[in-house]
Amino acid sequence: MARRKKLYEGKAKIIYEGTEPGTVIQYFKDDATAFNAVKHDVIAGKGVLNNRISSHLMTKLEQIGIPTHFIRSINMREQLVRSVEIIPLEVVMRNVAAGSLCKRLGLEEGTVLNRPLTEFYYKKDELGDPMVSDEHIFTFGWADPYELEEIVSMAWRINDYLSGLFSGIGLTLVDFKVEFGRIYGEHGELYIILADELSPDNCRLWDAKTGEKLDKD
Amino acid sequence: MARRKKLYEGKAKIIYEGTEPGTVIQYFKDDATAFNAVKHDVIAGKGVLNNRISSHLMTKLEQIGIPTHFIRSINMREQLVRSVEIIPLEVVMRNVAAGSLCKRLGLEEGTVLNRPLTEFYYKKDELGDPMVSDEHIFTFGWADPYELEEIVSMAWRINDYLSGLFSGIGLTLVDFKVEFGRIYGEHGELYIILADELSPDNCRLWDAKTGEKLDKD
Repeated sequence: MARRKKLYEGKAKIIYEGTEPGTVIQYFKDDATAFNAVKHDVIAGKGVLNNRISSHLMTKLEQIGIPTHFIRSINMREQLVRSVEIIPLEVVMRNVAAGSLCKRLGLEEGTVLNRPLTEFYYKKDELGDPMVSDEHIFTFGWADPYELEEIVSMAWRINDYLSGLFSGIGLTLVDFKVEFGRIYGEHGELYIILADELSPDNCRLWDAKTGEKLDKD
Repeated sequence: MARRKKLYEGKAKIIYEGTEPGTVIQYFKDDATAFNAVKHDVIAGKGVLNNRISSHLMTKLEQIGIPTHFIRSINMREQLVRSVEIIPLEVVMRNVAAGSLCKRLGLEEGTVLNRPLTEFYYKKDELGDPMVSDEHIFTFGWADPYELEEIVSMAWRINDYLSGLFSGIGLTLVDFKVEFGRIYGEHGELYIILADELSPDNCRLWDAKTGEKLDKD
């Protein structure tokens, strides 16, 4: 393989220059982090699995009309994706109270929420990815109201679809995190698409019967 | 004065039974707290001043059509107010970055915001009044979307009016906190009104020229 230009290295992935204009290559590492990198471990084969799962789930989501950055798998650890202008938000959807939500609001873990709950976190490692609201997002210009409406509507659809999919195999989708990016069409039209990855790294999944936790924590 | 029933004692105020149905008496104490009660002090005469200022500002706000709980002053430390069903939210309006916002988002103190920023905090001392978004408010039923729209619209009007008022005397309204409550009409109609107090205890005011801080911190 020819030497490629590394564009970015994160906690779980490396981004290389793509093979076609408007694309990049996502390389999935085996490093596992949780709680904003406080826990760190290397799980052999995790990258291979996440590459596979993310490709699979994004392909499924494309089929129900959610645009994603996924183009195609390259090999066990790599996939070709669209190059996006990343929106600096982690969008969290929660169906059941767990993790930081319980601590913050004094809820018992496992409390089923009255409705799915959308949370936003500002992607900024050095600040510990602080929680923000739509108000902060508009004030600081991280996304505009039209973009955020699109993002939230996609996040809810993804939640519905994945909840169904996991329920079909006996799992409860407790919560998950997604990220979105902007791409521009030929005439400058803006599109918001699902980016990053969709894998067990970003999902809390519990056994629907026993409640056993199958997530990364 | 006849012995009255104490209904509630908070950090800065005591609430007694009112003299008429649907009313309560707010007694203003001299205790000053900041940073969620981490700082505590007693400032002689503070209660008298806050009673006076809150009465004055609420009367002004009534004149521009913002409904408030204020009925009339009783004496130096007490005012008769409508009894409300309190909405468990602290609504913060910010014009300039200061305090917790700077820390949370890594902003420099004194940064003028692009637009006024509304923040919500869940009133729960034992959790340290955590920040929440409209999503948490709806999911946990603290207010419904119609109520929140009303609250936000009032908070913005209050911000505009008070910014003008303080600007007229050479002060910058950096941020302030308000609370709202529900009252019900004869036929069960719901009204949202401004409750609690509006005083230097809940406002950050800086000298517009020198930037000198005149607030409680």
